[in-house]
Amino acid sequence: MRLALIQLFVTDDKTENVRRACEFLEQAKQGGADIAVLPEMFCCPYSNSCFPSYAEPMDGFVQKTLSETAARLGMTVVAGSYPELCGGKIYNTACVYGADGSLIAKHRKMHLFDIDVKGGQRFFESETLTPGSEITTFETPFGKFGLCICFDMRFEELSRIMALDGAQVIIVPGAFNMTTGPAHWELLFRQRAVDNQLFTVGVAPARDENGEYVSYAHSMAVSPWGEVLCDCGVDECVKFIEINTDSIDSVRKQLPILSARRTDVYEIGAKE
Amino acid sequence: MRLALIQLFVTDDKTENVRRACEFLEQAKQGGADIAVLPEMFCCPYSNSCFPSYAEPMDGFVQKTLSETAARLGMTVVAGSYPELCGGKIYNTACVYGADGSLIAKHRKMHLFDIDVKGGQRFFESETLTPGSEITTFETPFGKFGLCICFDMRFEELSRIMALDGAQVIIVPGAFNMTTGPAHWELLFRQRAVDNQLFTVGVAPARDENGEYVSYAHSMAVSPWGEVLCDCGVDECVKFIEINTDSIDSVRKQLPILSARRTDVYEIGAKE
Repeated sequence: MRLALIQLFVTDDKTENVRRACEFLEQAKQGGADIAVLPEMFCCPYSNSCFPSYAEPMDGFVQKTLSETAARLGMTVVAGSYPELCGGKIYNTACVYGADGSLIAKHRKMHLFDIDVKGGQRFFESETLTPGSEITTFETPFGKFGLCICFDMRFEELSRIMALDGAQVIIVPGAFNMTTGPAHWELLFRQRAVDNQLFTVGVAPARDENGEYVSYAHSMAVSPWGEVLCDCGVDECVKFIEINTDSIDSVRKQLPILSARRTDVYEIGAKE
Repeated sequence: MRLALIQLFVTDDKTENVRRACEFLEQAKQGGADIAVLPEMFCCPYSNSCFPSYAEPMDGFVQKTLSETAARLGMTVVAGSYPELCGGKIYNTACVYGADGSLIAKHRKMHLFDIDVKGGQRFFESETLTPGSEITTFETPFGKFGLCICFDMRFEELSRIMALDGAQVIIVPGAFNMTTGPAHWELLFRQRAVDNQLFTVGVAPARDENGEYVSYAHSMAVSPWGEVLCDCGVDECVKFIEINTDSIDSVRKQLPILSARRTDVYEIGAKE
């Protein structure tokens, strides 16, 4: 499987963001991608002041265009995430379209980033966003995937449950900031890959030093052994990686983690 | 709290290993340590061929000497681990002695390292060792600790459960090899610290290039933000770190992970 990471530069022009995302998806297809991944909030600046006005229902312009593009290109598309309007609420939602344009998965960010450091940073996603409550995995012709969004990846339970559910690749549209990014982004994607012996892929917006929220960028893919397969740096770009899911079995035989868990002593799982 | 990491060089002379361990504990005390940590199998070469002949009951020479040394020095001692003989079985067991010499915690390694790579490495700890089945945390005058041994640390469930149980520092006598060490040792201690927002401390034997099992060494301590506080390199040494458990609260406020877990969606815990 050939996977494209699209590190898009996100502006405050929604239509233009979508148009350029589709242009990059076309580049990904030309580069031989089977599946392409866009960043978190690829069509909307990362800000509580923008989420409400940029939000759209699932049958709105953004998702309609992405579905049509997936079908036109005949390529699976992980459509980053966007502010989804539903029942008067706004979710941070990632949609996946199959090569025929059909919606094959949808994940609503379930851990919202709320912080209030005395004398420091204050950011409450929950001021405008509502969290989802579903753990998301999906089948493709290239294997089984897990899907979550940015801060979700901080919670090890989620990756573990997706891995136990058969995920071979965990895809994460995300956007770490300039504090957490240098400190934790690569570490996180590497250790989740090693702990669960699968591939991890994080795709962030390109860095905009003048943006209200400065994305660390460094979209990245990591192997089940914890090797960084690709690091997109900070500029807008498309990068390709080859994912051979056979390597998962070989790593799991070499270092038995998932199979050696002491399920008689501890347990983890999704609640009913 | 001042903690000493004792990266001991382990020989095939049990008595001499214990004598030198006690010498280093004395150095740790002289250096102002409140608590000192010895490596995994600090008194026995890491080999299935040695575990049975080096094994002793809890009231044998090794543990008696360590308890007496803790009492004599008035210092809490995490006595690495040793082959414990009990009921005809051998466990890889870590004991902790309080400043009065009393046993305050005991952990039996619960994940044994069994691998059989076709045409590659073959090592079955379970040929000679029996796994424990208890998750171990303990109180000290300096805070609450979690304790596990080497391969145990690979299993994220264990650290999470210890953190939820209140552990502020996770201590891990360990000995990664020359394949897994460079690939995963630092990554592992850093990410467990970040995921659970606590201190992690791994203490390994010094490297013996001529040993049957070559220890990666690099005994290490990591902060709740994921910073490496100390890396002992490969040679025999004692290193000291200051642990300020107040920094745990400050990191947990800055980046709410443990408190933001979606316990309505997933659960993790020890079985009854």
